[in-house]
Amino acid sequence: MSFDSLWESLRDVGRDTVTGGYRRFAWTPTDLLLREWFTGEAQRRGMDVEEDRNGNLWAWWLPAGTTGDPHGAFVTGSHLDSVPDGGAFDGPLGIVSAFTAIDALRADGITPRTPVAVVAFSDEEGARFGVACVGSQLSTGALAPDRALALRDGDGTTLAEALRAAGRRPDHVGADPNLADRVGVYVELHVEQGRALDLVDRPVAVASAIWPHGRWRFSFCGEANHAGATRLVDRRDPMLTFATSVHDARGRAAAHEAVATFGKVRVTPNGANAIPSRVEAWLDARAADEATLHALVGQISADATANAGTDRTTVTVDTESVSPAVIFPEQPRERIHRALTGEFGEIPVLPTAAGHDAGVLSTEVPTAMLFVRNPTGVSHSPDEYAEIADCHAGARALAAVMADWVA
Amino acid sequence: MSFDSLWESLRDVGRDTVTGGYRRFAWTPTDLLLREWFTGEAQRRGMDVEEDRNGNLWAWWLPAGTTGDPHGAFVTGSHLDSVPDGGAFDGPLGIVSAFTAIDALRADGITPRTPVAVVAFSDEEGARFGVACVGSQLSTGALAPDRALALRDGDGTTLAEALRAAGRRPDHVGADPNLADRVGVYVELHVEQGRALDLVDRPVAVASAIWPHGRWRFSFCGEANHAGATRLVDRRDPMLTFATSVHDARGRAAAHEAVATFGKVRVTPNGANAIPSRVEAWLDARAADEATLHALVGQISADATANAGTDRTTVTVDTESVSPAVIFPEQPRERIHRALTGEFGEIPVLPTAAGHDAGVLSTEVPTAMLFVRNPTGVSHSPDEYAEIADCHAGARALAAVMADWVA
Repeated sequence: MSFDSLWESLRDVGRDTVTGGYRRFAWTPTDLLLREWFTGEAQRRGMDVEEDRNGNLWAWWLPAGTTGDPHGAFVTGSHLDSVPDGGAFDGPLGIVSAFTAIDALRADGITPRTPVAVVAFSDEEGARFGVACVGSQLSTGALAPDRALALRDGDGTTLAEALRAAGRRPDHVGADPNLADRVGVYVELHVEQGRALDLVDRPVAVASAIWPHGRWRFSFCGEANHAGATRLVDRRDPMLTFATSVHDARGRAAAHEAVATFGKVRVTPNGANAIPSRVEAWLDARAADEATLHALVGQISADATANAGTDRTTVTVDTESVSPAVIFPEQPRERIHRALTGEFGEIPVLPTAAGHDAGVLSTEVPTAMLFVRNPTGVSHSPDEYAEIADCHAGARALAAVMADWVA
Repeated sequence: MSFDSLWESLRDVGRDTVTGGYRRFAWTPTDLLLREWFTGEAQRRGMDVEEDRNGNLWAWWLPAGTTGDPHGAFVTGSHLDSVPDGGAFDGPLGIVSAFTAIDALRADGITPRTPVAVVAFSDEEGARFGVACVGSQLSTGALAPDRALALRDGDGTTLAEALRAAGRRPDHVGADPNLADRVGVYVELHVEQGRALDLVDRPVAVASAIWPHGRWRFSFCGEANHAGATRLVDRRDPMLTFATSVHDARGRAAAHEAVATFGKVRVTPNGANAIPSRVEAWLDARAADEATLHALVGQISADATANAGTDRTTVTVDTESVSPAVIFPEQPRERIHRALTGEFGEIPVLPTAAGHDAGVLSTEVPTAMLFVRNPTGVSHSPDEYAEIADCHAGARALAAVMADWVA
């Protein structure tokens, strides 16, 4: 089965017909449909599928005569869920490329001497419950089961309730003691979420590092009041303080050569004729190293506190998640680089500011990433795009890496 | 029945137990409960209740021997719906005071020589469908039935569908040809939504005018993208342009001695790790006269367009509603003022920046308003408050005005 027909079979799942973006959120009916798709593709290839205790799906291609639990496997894959109105490539490209790579090895008559797995990690984007990489973080133990299960979506449904509604057992989630033994290496292929490859005109890169990043909830509080009858001098309007922070975040990030974004906002009561009592806003910040990241967020928080004083509002800042820097290890990166250099010419080695399950797993097992060129750099948007020729190149590159590792 | 027990009987209807604010939205079960309450209080007083074609409720106290449709009535009342997390007084105080005033006249043995009505206008706040004073605007013809029926709430339900679900007939709504004949005067008592009475230490005032005001939807559009991997220089982030407009609106309003507020915001896709593609924000603006209002909104719009150019975003501004200035007529204002001066001492005459059904009706019938002191000035908030002694004074003042008019 070709890359193109596999890709096409996912095209309409969870796609919003108005925006053209994807709304594939953890443990929704759309997510369950994607899981069915994954299982179907694995079965079509004679691969057994296992769902681990945290909802991550593993499809196995084992050496002949394997008995018992596989260990030291070459694992590749990504995730199937999306941000709200996300693009088609972020996540699914890695899984479609993984199945395509296996097809390519089989077409070449290769049988693996090492177990091979395609993995689909659960809830990578965190769009529904607010925390990213829930599946991989639970498996490594980075996220405690109690904290994960108590996460709530916008309707107040907890992850525990969502798991139960999907027929899963919340009491089973937690760290996976077999992870390090099972996974020999995890190689994740992903569409690039920037324009670095486009700027150097190359189709495929290897990742050097993931910037440390995190998410902080700023709660700006003032006093709800009538938007018409309240004099300006009597107001305590938290929208003003928030607005100042939007610009402070941009300015501070620029000074640090970092990025900082307020992309999610919740206003209370959110009435057109009411001064808000509260504006909650989520800051996403990322920087080249952890010291810079903490300095950046510290400055934006201090700016907000100072501005709140001026506006007679208050602000509290809660850390929702912080992911430390990931430096992908020299091994397997150099082996992967070597496997590609012949066929693919010069392979750039690039850092990324986007978080990935490969980053989460890097504390427990050797990990590496391949990036596929994104000509516009746009991601987390219906406009996310990659050329089909570059997608083919990515899948061929992944096949070359897989063959080098397992043949 | 005393003011206090009437007031108490409304206390828990539609009250959010977490915020303490009211969520009384048009044609919801809570609204129907409030309509039942109104009908019950009218029936307890032997008053016939009529619901007009636009959902406004009228309870009648008629001179003995009245036959046929009443005309030239003394009408008083207000509304029972609220903004999201509104206060207890905005609206209900006028209706409770109206019933209390009738009780007071009856206790004094007064029988009316002119018809008296208590009215509860439908959907004054516009919290659900986005347009204020829907009931009164339909009755005066200021709002066309087609436009009203097509209004949608946040779930996509149209007003027509909501009316049908509540057992009403959408095909019946429209201008009321008998309004001018039926209403001799409309006197609305309302809690003040500012601190003017508190500053001069008086319990009750008469309204001079309502500032012209309106609501404009600003749609700031940019490009959704990954909050981590998109370089600052590559961004087209509409949150920046919106944030600048929040401050521009405040600054321009201050310069005009007007008010301007962004209190409602809708972000797309509203994901913590996505640069927004769109920020919609509603501007509420009010000024002492219409020329100033239009200059103010024109400047804020021009500022937004200029800033959008800088940020490589776009902005469109749609007028959702504009209410012209209302100058309450010298008659009946002076008669009301005269009726109160003896018992209540000096009665301030004040403008307000808040819209009211009395303003809408002023194009068709003589209207006037009484305000009751608001010691904090807070309104459209769970913290909205008036002293019980001032509420009693307001009801007594309304009774004096009613007696002067109908006895």
